[in-house]
Amino acid sequence: MTKKIIIAGPRGKMGAEAVQMVDKEPSYDLIACIDRKNGGKSIKDIQDTNGLPALDVPIFENPETCFQEMDADVFVDLTVPGAGFEHTKLALLYGIRPVVGTSGFSDDQLAALQDLSMTHGTGCIIAPNFAVGAVLMMQFAKTAAKYLPDVEIIEKHHDQKLDAPSGTAVKTAAMMQENRENKQQGHPDEKETLDGARGAETDGIHIHSVRLPGLVAHQEVLFGSPGQGLTIKHDSYNRASFMEGVKLCIRKVEDLDRLVYGLENILD
Amino acid sequence: MTKKIIIAGPRGKMGAEAVQMVDKEPSYDLIACIDRKNGGKSIKDIQDTNGLPALDVPIFENPETCFQEMDADVFVDLTVPGAGFEHTKLALLYGIRPVVGTSGFSDDQLAALQDLSMTHGTGCIIAPNFAVGAVLMMQFAKTAAKYLPDVEIIEKHHDQKLDAPSGTAVKTAAMMQENRENKQQGHPDEKETLDGARGAETDGIHIHSVRLPGLVAHQEVLFGSPGQGLTIKHDSYNRASFMEGVKLCIRKVEDLDRLVYGLENILD
Amino acid sequence: MTKKIIIAGPRGKMGAEAVQMVDKEPSYDLIACIDRKNGGKSIKDIQDTNGLPALDVPIFENPETCFQEMDADVFVDLTVPGAGFEHTKLALLYGIRPVVGTSGFSDDQLAALQDLSMTHGTGCIIAPNFAVGAVLMMQFAKTAAKYLPDVEIIEKHHDQKLDAPSGTAVKTAAMMQENRENKQQGHPDEKETLDGARGAETDGIHIHSVRLPGLVAHQEVLFGSPGQGLTIKHDSYNRASFMEGVKLCIRKVEDLDRLVYGLENILD
Amino acid sequence: MTKKIIIAGPRGKMGAEAVQMVDKEPSYDLIACIDRKNGGKSIKDIQDTNGLPALDVPIFENPETCFQEMDADVFVDLTVPGAGFEHTKLALLYGIRPVVGTSGFSDDQLAALQDLSMTHGTGCIIAPNFAVGAVLMMQFAKTAAKYLPDVEIIEKHHDQKLDAPSGTAVKTAAMMQENRENKQQGHPDEKETLDGARGAETDGIHIHSVRLPGLVAHQEVLFGSPGQGLTIKHDSYNRASFMEGVKLCIRKVEDLDRLVYGLENILD
Repeated sequence: MTKKIIIAGPRGKMGAEAVQMVDKEPSYDLIACIDRKNGGKSIKDIQDTNGLPALDVPIFENPETCFQEMDADVFVDLTVPGAGFEHTKLALLYGIRPVVGTSGFSDDQLAALQDLSMTHGTGCIIAPNFAVGAVLMMQFAKTAAKYLPDVEIIEKHHDQKLDAPSGTAVKTAAMMQENRENKQQGHPDEKETLDGARGAETDGIHIHSVRLPGLVAHQEVLFGSPGQGLTIKHDSYNRASFMEGVKLCIRKVEDLDRLVYGLENILD
Repeated sequence: MTKKIIIAGPRGKMGAEAVQMVDKEPSYDLIACIDRKNGGKSIKDIQDTNGLPALDVPIFENPETCFQEMDADVFVDLTVPGAGFEHTKLALLYGIRPVVGTSGFSDDQLAALQDLSMTHGTGCIIAPNFAVGAVLMMQFAKTAAKYLPDVEIIEKHHDQKLDAPSGTAVKTAAMMQENRENKQQGHPDEKETLDGARGAETDGIHIHSVRLPGLVAHQEVLFGSPGQGLTIKHDSYNRASFMEGVKLCIRKVEDLDRLVYGLENILD
Repeated sequence: MTKKIIIAGPRGKMGAEAVQMVDKEPSYDLIACIDRKNGGKSIKDIQDTNGLPALDVPIFENPETCFQEMDADVFVDLTVPGAGFEHTKLALLYGIRPVVGTSGFSDDQLAALQDLSMTHGTGCIIAPNFAVGAVLMMQFAKTAAKYLPDVEIIEKHHDQKLDAPSGTAVKTAAMMQENRENKQQGHPDEKETLDGARGAETDGIHIHSVRLPGLVAHQEVLFGSPGQGLTIKHDSYNRASFMEGVKLCIRKVEDLDRLVYGLENILD
Repeated sequence: MTKKIIIAGPRGKMGAEAVQMVDKEPSYDLIACIDRKNGGKSIKDIQDTNGLPALDVPIFENPETCFQEMDADVFVDLTVPGAGFEHTKLALLYGIRPVVGTSGFSDDQLAALQDLSMTHGTGCIIAPNFAVGAVLMMQFAKTAAKYLPDVEIIEKHHDQKLDAPSGTAVKTAAMMQENRENKQQGHPDEKETLDGARGAETDGIHIHSVRLPGLVAHQEVLFGSPGQGLTIKHDSYNRASFMEGVKLCIRKVEDLDRLVYGLENILD
């Protein structure tokens, strides 16, 4: 059966990508968009300047009117925390299951949405990272760290990235640390003859950041143990990677009767 | 507390490696070996020809006498299916927890050992593959195949290997297939201008076998999805890799009150 | 000193990329384009529909008029063999050094251009592949094959590619074969338990073709020898990679007094 | 035609490996060894304690006597600088071509050997590193650095290695720097939020050192450029890797009439 979908934020990068994805997927039906500009227009009216397809899909400026008038199965929010919170609350009130890519909600906001979701028995997924491959990499790394405590991370990005190490690398190390016995990686007497050779260190795990033109976003988690090595690698090339995660959430949110935070908690 | 351990098969490659490992581990105490030759001798009497350390550890020819006389916590069997079955049965009867690396038991033998283990409430682990990294690779591949159905396998071995693809590659494909939607990998109209370019195929999953001198045993499982890739790689360099698995089993078997088959089922 | 450049084929994918590259490079000056449509217009007149920058650069329909009127240092041709041959001949006659990305010239055409280049002492580069990294990979593979005759190729492309193996893989194998002792790779008695596992074979070199969504164009050449391995890998992400080669040719063509075919022959 | 070979240093790790290699190679004939202990014995007399094969090959304590009495084609020296220098000088005087794996000769010693080699027209190779793959990696990296100046090095070793970065990594960086335009790798405003994330730096080239159990000795040189990447990787598993280099030198030294220093100078 076709799923009727509403998207908020169609002019943003992620939102525009989602409009295209929903349009292409035969089992999805895009029935409306929410956009604080362009109310009363249709997607085809604003497609010129935003890389959107020429779809005859109505745009609502007022989310409540949208949820009232349009009978949707799933609501996909790709806006910003302020608007995203209001949209999600309303969708839950109207019994439309939200899939929310906005990150940066406060703890209070999350608690409020959790209550609302539970009370109405309406499933809801909030996912700060929709890249299924990246989330799997982190989950696998966390599991492997239980059995193979010797581990280092190499992350590689384009040379326009300013910060090193990447947020994903630091988060991966933190997740592994939850599962890993305390261990200082490398020989206790090792010595850097050039400063920084052994990389950054957090909880005894070393992180190495490579920056080169041509690269996009890549990470390898390398485990070593006598006689063997295990490597988990993720390569991210473009935003298309997030759409698989959005689709997964649209599929999974239907079976939920409460709010789930983080893609990792729907990957079983 | 020190764990008292008996090893069967000390002259085999795996067995000799296990004797060395147990000898080095401070919390383990090797109290006896079982060997159908050399009964009445000590490990130090046979160390010359087998790369064994010079340990004053008694060797028993009769397993029952061994289990009667020596008060052990764990029994490690690294022999062959026939002897392995008899040893494991006896160990269970004497309440000594078996860790068995022998593969090739029949279904009847496994069922008998399962019954015995359950009846006595004595934990037992039978593991055809002790390489923790390889088992994790297969588990992760199986999980990832649920979310990323486009996948190919590259396995690389030394050029003295006769069969292609490797047993591990075929097993990995089968495990992924349990979780994966049916999908023919590659373009439906793809064409080999040189036969075999797209590799072997099983259930729509392609497997590529590289054979080169210098290599040992390596496998990569490559998942692709629009805009991203996820790779899980295992490198096996030597038999030392199996000893981490043996240690893990020795640790885990104590908390079990039944038989577990396969390392994957004690990795949680 | 600024180099004055003419580009033919500004509406093609490579041509449009070249227009942008020349526009951004401070030491280059784009003085004209040749386009069989749009004569008399300016690049800014056609930029809307072709992703071209809004440059006030004249477009000529007639190449001879262009070469006569515009005093250029280098002529970059990114058209098709028919037009490309005529353009290059004319540029040589007018003493403007051609850098030609068109492939598919006949032997007669190449011979004619070689004569013309030599007679006029005007340098000319014809490069079927402008990707410096790919050309270096092939050159290095050719050299390594002299010393390490055991070699296999893995090439990986997106799953919309129809042919396997890739042209680059076949060419790399042929180049290695020039330098390599005759050798059948793998064990003489090896056996495929699944057809195609050992890949395609040409001159005893095995080629494996992986096809996955998310990939672009990647190739690894793997050499093995007792106790060691050498791998040469090229990753191609987008057409930007060709522009480094175009720039290299623009720089090198000035020092030439004859025609050079293939980027590999200006990499020393 | 069979080559008659003398080896000095048969009890050392490299020497013992060379004795085995020469013994196995059908076109080589090991006719004598030089060893400051064990003069007058045969290799089979000392094989027990040194992993040597049981060969009836005479051992000389005095190198001059050896070169006088034995009519050899090639002399392979795998000893230490002091003895190595004396041996090589004598071999050149007796017209036997030396292949010397000893490193650490002084400039004066090298000059003296160069003179002697030239005067007698007797070829001689001195190679501090016999690993053909590693030498090719460094040569290729040096060439690529001319065209792709953005480069970083990742070297990976077992966790018993004390120094970071490895000597090979530092040497590779220095070789690339000879060919590379001056360039600070990475964004000018990049910032380490954890110290050392961007690795060590020499001449603007970043080097990252990974240390994990299970690893042996591995290095990757990664070049990046808009839209593409080129990677050159060497994996070293054991000393067998050096024997290919020794064989190459034995073959090449015959065509030389002077001294060549470094394997890279006989790889053309």
